[in-house]
Amino acid sequence: MSPLDLDLSAMHLDDSHAETLERYAELMVVHGIGVQPGQVVTIGTEAVHRELALAVMAKAYDRGAKVVELDLSDPRAGRIRAEHSEPEHLEFVPAWATAKATEICDVQGATLRIIGSEAPDVLAGLDAQVLNTMRVARYKALKVFYDRGINQSQVHWSIAAAATPQWAQQVFPEMDDAGAACRRLWEAIFTVCRADRPDCLDLWRAHNATLARRARTLSEMGIDALHFGGPGTNLTVGLSPKARFKGGADTGPNGGSFEPNIPTEECFTTPDYRRTEGTARATRPFLVNGTMVEGLEMTFSEGVMTDFKATAGADVYGAYIDSDEGARRLGEVALVGVDSPIFKSGIVFREILFDENAACHIAVGSAYKACLEGGETMPDEQLAELGCNESSAHLDMMISDEQTTVTAVLQDGNRTTLLEAGRWVGELA
Amino acid sequence: MSPLDLDLSAMHLDDSHAETLERYAELMVVHGIGVQPGQVVTIGTEAVHRELALAVMAKAYDRGAKVVELDLSDPRAGRIRAEHSEPEHLEFVPAWATAKATEICDVQGATLRIIGSEAPDVLAGLDAQVLNTMRVARYKALKVFYDRGINQSQVHWSIAAAATPQWAQQVFPEMDDAGAACRRLWEAIFTVCRADRPDCLDLWRAHNATLARRARTLSEMGIDALHFGGPGTNLTVGLSPKARFKGGADTGPNGGSFEPNIPTEECFTTPDYRRTEGTARATRPFLVNGTMVEGLEMTFSEGVMTDFKATAGADVYGAYIDSDEGARRLGEVALVGVDSPIFKSGIVFREILFDENAACHIAVGSAYKACLEGGETMPDEQLAELGCNESSAHLDMMISDEQTTVTAVLQDGNRTTLLEAGRWVGELA
Repeated sequence: MSPLDLDLSAMHLDDSHAETLERYAELMVVHGIGVQPGQVVTIGTEAVHRELALAVMAKAYDRGAKVVELDLSDPRAGRIRAEHSEPEHLEFVPAWATAKATEICDVQGATLRIIGSEAPDVLAGLDAQVLNTMRVARYKALKVFYDRGINQSQVHWSIAAAATPQWAQQVFPEMDDAGAACRRLWEAIFTVCRADRPDCLDLWRAHNATLARRARTLSEMGIDALHFGGPGTNLTVGLSPKARFKGGADTGPNGGSFEPNIPTEECFTTPDYRRTEGTARATRPFLVNGTMVEGLEMTFSEGVMTDFKATAGADVYGAYIDSDEGARRLGEVALVGVDSPIFKSGIVFREILFDENAACHIAVGSAYKACLEGGETMPDEQLAELGCNESSAHLDMMISDEQTTVTAVLQDGNRTTLLEAGRWVGELA
Repeated sequence: MSPLDLDLSAMHLDDSHAETLERYAELMVVHGIGVQPGQVVTIGTEAVHRELALAVMAKAYDRGAKVVELDLSDPRAGRIRAEHSEPEHLEFVPAWATAKATEICDVQGATLRIIGSEAPDVLAGLDAQVLNTMRVARYKALKVFYDRGINQSQVHWSIAAAATPQWAQQVFPEMDDAGAACRRLWEAIFTVCRADRPDCLDLWRAHNATLARRARTLSEMGIDALHFGGPGTNLTVGLSPKARFKGGADTGPNGGSFEPNIPTEECFTTPDYRRTEGTARATRPFLVNGTMVEGLEMTFSEGVMTDFKATAGADVYGAYIDSDEGARRLGEVALVGVDSPIFKSGIVFREILFDENAACHIAVGSAYKACLEGGETMPDEQLAELGCNESSAHLDMMISDEQTTVTAVLQDGNRTTLLEAGRWVGELA
């Protein structure tokens, strides 16, 4: 595929995938982090994905990156720390981690994360409190990045995925051959990310235009609340008058464009966390600290999740939403139609990057300040007045399928249907 | 071997090596970086070695490490930068790299590097000037670590090795099976590092005592110059009266012990760079920026290497010693007897960590300030007066074998033989 002699077989691919993989790497660099000349770039991923990461690195340098730092990790490191560290050390994060997060914001850099684990369950069975302690400490140390890099879009950030045999076998449990499963997962990823199409980059331009148009329409409708109706779901999510919908590409500090998620199919906004009422049933399983949560049913009252039950993962889920005050309140609501390629693929990817783009979803935890007009630079008290949730947590839960109706309750009291049978209707289609 | 289910087959080893590997990891943690409770630890290595690195990490946490950060790298990253970056960006190193190097000194941390490349020749054929630009920039950014961490021993630092099939096939070119070669290299590493012996940790204690005794004797002899004699070699290396020999374990800032190199067989000191005279022939090949230099013959006059020839790698070598003024002057001289397990193994490891411990060697480039009495905290002008070399380079070259005689010219004018036929004599044996 490249002058670097990258080892496609190490990815369970072969030469027939070379062009597609190259396009996929191109998509990450051009649309994903939108590398600009002189930009400082970091790529974070598990070591298993370094073939792909190196391809991305070469393309980033070709577009003029000042430096591309590769941060390779091993998923077992977290488990080893949780099991072998003295408990009193679990909260320690070196200051250099914060220094790095700060610098990447200061220099208006670009950060790509390539997810997909070779040990998806590596944290399963560990003490949930220990994991939350580590996670919260890390969140605090990197808060500058979440605040400035992500919320204020000072960094070109993007998340994309790469297949592993271990992840693939969870997605396709009926396949005995892990290598074949991995290849099938790669092909599914290529398809839903449009990387299988020669005109991939153009298709993404058109797709971004659709999402932007939809987000603008939703923002201008004057929506006071969203209502989700379907089997097990009767949920009202209140929005502040300052709520704005976002979708697709975002704009960086000097006007450059980047794609926070590859794939992305959602139009999302920040709810007023005090105004969530009713019940919602998760339509897809999702991971929490390495444990799959299934059959989740939630009840909200005055904005707080007052009750839940789950057929699997209830303990881990319970510990997660108890990790701080904001973890039982909503920080995001997102609309996705069932014409989404992820929904159409029929695959439960068991990775939120994909599954959240299959269906409408709500998230407990931290909100996107940028989804409130002027929110990026708003003082904390004013954000709190608008019901902008604050938390170290952020967890998306899918709540729609083909039986779902989403209705907008407008500020003038009228109601408009946004999605019917899970599908966008009217001018939003 | 461990509750982590580390994959020995990924290392081309099997269950019969589990105990040895565990001892080797223990050696790195106990003698190598000498982890102390509450210490901040980093482990830097190529991604291919993460099985071993994780075993080390677990043991470091078991000994109370505050955090263990794993810095995994891919050897191809440097080549990609050299080939794809705009030339004007090659000198850029993010400030966070310096911040990290500074913090690890400030907190008196521990840093383990596990060498052994899966692409030993990855830099071969690249523009030597480009590589030197990148190397020098990185050296400057991390100078705080070399000055404080290494020269002032503020950090528990250690370098050890792990085998790769690619390295192993260079060491054993007659072996077609890369996996078998890798296994053979592992076994050689285990042997020369004494990890194959159940009493490995005790053997290292005794070995350190021998090296310490030898270094003390050499320091107290009042040596004015060392003379190396043998085929192609007739070299005098002058020492300042403040020169002190070191060998084996070093002592950290709070009295803890660490082992800078595993293996280590040398007693070394810092020469007066102005007083090197004569000729020297390298007795073993060595790598420079990924290129093997063979058949090297050097001529020194008034401390400067005025001439050299080599049967292979001459261009790369020439560019290296021209990278700054200090790169043509000596910064180290080290004595090693041919009873060294590395020499006795008969193997040319093509890695300086091993090969320098097979034979006496000299190094051009930066000197160890700590080998001058009071040198750790001495002002630069005073160091210069003692002939302590300063450079961004440091390159060891082996110059002894069984035909070598090393003589000490003492400050009182007497001469004493230190090594005869390559072997320590008298009370130094």
